[in-house]
Amino acid sequence: MTTVNKDYLNLRGSYLFSTIAKKVAAFQEANPDQRIIRLGIGDVTQPLAPTIIEALHKAVDEMADAATFRGYAPDLGYEFLRNRIAEHDFAKRGCQIYPDEIFVSDGAKSDSGNIQEIFGRDNVIAVCDPVYPVYVDTNVMAGRTGSFNEELGMWDRVIYMPCTAENGFAPEIPEQVPDLIYLCFPNNPTGATVTKDRLQEWVDYANQHGSVIIYDAAYEAYITEADVPHSIYECEGARTCAIELHSFSKNAGFTGLRLGYTVIPKDLVVEGTMVHSLWARRHGTKYNGAPYIVQRAGEAVYTEEGQAQIKEQVAYYMRNAKAIKEGLAAAGYSVSGGVNAPYIWLKTPDGLTSWEFFDRLLDQAKVVGTPGVGFGPSGEGYFRLTAFGRYEDTLEALERIKTI
Amino acid sequence: MTTVNKDYLNLRGSYLFSTIAKKVAAFQEANPDQRIIRLGIGDVTQPLAPTIIEALHKAVDEMADAATFRGYAPDLGYEFLRNRIAEHDFAKRGCQIYPDEIFVSDGAKSDSGNIQEIFGRDNVIAVCDPVYPVYVDTNVMAGRTGSFNEELGMWDRVIYMPCTAENGFAPEIPEQVPDLIYLCFPNNPTGATVTKDRLQEWVDYANQHGSVIIYDAAYEAYITEADVPHSIYECEGARTCAIELHSFSKNAGFTGLRLGYTVIPKDLVVEGTMVHSLWARRHGTKYNGAPYIVQRAGEAVYTEEGQAQIKEQVAYYMRNAKAIKEGLAAAGYSVSGGVNAPYIWLKTPDGLTSWEFFDRLLDQAKVVGTPGVGFGPSGEGYFRLTAFGRYEDTLEALERIKTI
Repeated sequence: MTTVNKDYLNLRGSYLFSTIAKKVAAFQEANPDQRIIRLGIGDVTQPLAPTIIEALHKAVDEMADAATFRGYAPDLGYEFLRNRIAEHDFAKRGCQIYPDEIFVSDGAKSDSGNIQEIFGRDNVIAVCDPVYPVYVDTNVMAGRTGSFNEELGMWDRVIYMPCTAENGFAPEIPEQVPDLIYLCFPNNPTGATVTKDRLQEWVDYANQHGSVIIYDAAYEAYITEADVPHSIYECEGARTCAIELHSFSKNAGFTGLRLGYTVIPKDLVVEGTMVHSLWARRHGTKYNGAPYIVQRAGEAVYTEEGQAQIKEQVAYYMRNAKAIKEGLAAAGYSVSGGVNAPYIWLKTPDGLTSWEFFDRLLDQAKVVGTPGVGFGPSGEGYFRLTAFGRYEDTLEALERIKTI
Repeated sequence: MTTVNKDYLNLRGSYLFSTIAKKVAAFQEANPDQRIIRLGIGDVTQPLAPTIIEALHKAVDEMADAATFRGYAPDLGYEFLRNRIAEHDFAKRGCQIYPDEIFVSDGAKSDSGNIQEIFGRDNVIAVCDPVYPVYVDTNVMAGRTGSFNEELGMWDRVIYMPCTAENGFAPEIPEQVPDLIYLCFPNNPTGATVTKDRLQEWVDYANQHGSVIIYDAAYEAYITEADVPHSIYECEGARTCAIELHSFSKNAGFTGLRLGYTVIPKDLVVEGTMVHSLWARRHGTKYNGAPYIVQRAGEAVYTEEGQAQIKEQVAYYMRNAKAIKEGLAAAGYSVSGGVNAPYIWLKTPDGLTSWEFFDRLLDQAKVVGTPGVGFGPSGEGYFRLTAFGRYEDTLEALERIKTI
């Protein structure tokens, strides 16, 4: 008799953003006249930059001609893109990463979900708490997280590293040594960052204990402060302990275009096996590459014009971040994030739980945000707003929030 | 200490097509003046149809304007595409499949690799032998296949269903009852098909024994004969036992564009769980949708003009198939396939093994094909040629093959 993957049945509720989408849809149906402003899911709203649009049109035209038509992409992605990435995102920052250590993909969500698969099911993971739900959920689906403790809201085989106001939303090195350490800076959802010195401590720790760090750098384009690293490979020794995930979604508006990449240095060896070769095997067997036209769009991001245009977009969103942060602070909210990240993390008022505040915000202000507890137990009593809306909407949302 | 997924280490050699690519690259480097003709990997060569190009340009323009820009796609894919699929691929054929049973993805390779994940690790799979390597390899990576028997070239927990000249390349129902049955018709690599009556027997068998059929319909657009089903849902009772995979790669030339879909009827229940809900959870957690512009391209495939244009492309490739089949038969080869499929399956001459014939063909004719044994032990002594080349190249390849 066929059986199902029992680990899937252990998953808690549905994926956070699906739950929110359903609540919002129900509210809109009941209140068809109300204009809801969405500062919940981290989806961009600005159109693609002109240079990217131009590259897409050009690549589409190539697909119309047998002489320039492209079928299956190379396993790791096209060289024209991997070379640009290696040069711009790494060499220019003094990081030693080679083009053949870069795996082009359809985005950091897929990669951050799939990467656990190449490691043993006995590995113990450590995550920041709160954290992007995909890290934990995909480990639940792999049977790596033990049993769920309803009272604590925690899996008993997961090491939670609390990130709260008390420690400035920066995780401390845990007592129990984890096998896989998920770090995301600038952080989703708190918007917190880590200095290079502090990140170096994590790299040293991982090398000393034989742990692997999965470093999610999806938001690095939002860094404005000088001592905040854009890549973990800025730290000495990261080539032997760290995998890094990148996204084009938030720096260049690719949420609907789908492009990302994962870096696995060939020096990263676990149990005598190059982790690079395991991921190469997964990539080659279960994946068939990002579309040619999208890889050309990715290449355009790295041109001079592309860089100038996407910097403007990031600045647009960061103006939103500043407005939200300052506006909420002026209204008496306790807020953090928003300086090196497009996320604002606020303490819910009046001792409300995260979901209570979600409901209040939706009912009274018609504004959608994300309940902090959806990112982990230490997120209870917090709430995330994103800076990815239109500027005018963001200001209106603020005015509405101030009235409740 | 971190550990690796030991099941990955059990994989045999590297992925078939990667091995071939390396051999061809080495030959080309050693013989830079020789023009190699590739009839190996099933990659299309004809440019995208005009209607599809037009849809892509239009969608790119939408991404340039904030009013029409699209970010994250809906979890299952855009309705405009799922509605077209439901209507054209199912309702028109009398199959009862609803739009919300269709999951749009980046292709049948990813889906056929990932689908096993929602089932228990204790499940026993059955595969046609020879078969598309992804089915077995992804089950090896999940630890579902037991030990490899070097002598037989077989995994001891996999049920192999031999498809050879003796049984007309049609699998027989196995003695031991499998949990998951992978079927692919028209078949890759043999090009063989199954009649509706015969497929009905498989559906009845699966329903009777509680097995699940994973039906790969990637090549259905190549069917020319009336009694060959385009979908397993043409059979009565398939809604309670079958998953179906579709690709836009071979019918519409999307190998470089990446689009496919998987159908899971809500009536398919295993151990009291709707399989649909498991795949929905995987899709929502580890995937973020096919690009908007590519989904619009998929929509264009279903327009009247799109249908007419892709029919021409299929006809172009089928002219190749006919030429190869008749040409090789005239030259004394024993050939099959090529009537309802873009693949020609030939018996190697002179008792050569598949890889010996691969080397001879590459060395003497400068033609690349695919060794049958790469698809499974019963493929030994066979060889696959694809009809996806340019017509002129196909004819030249034939001339060259005839001289060896």
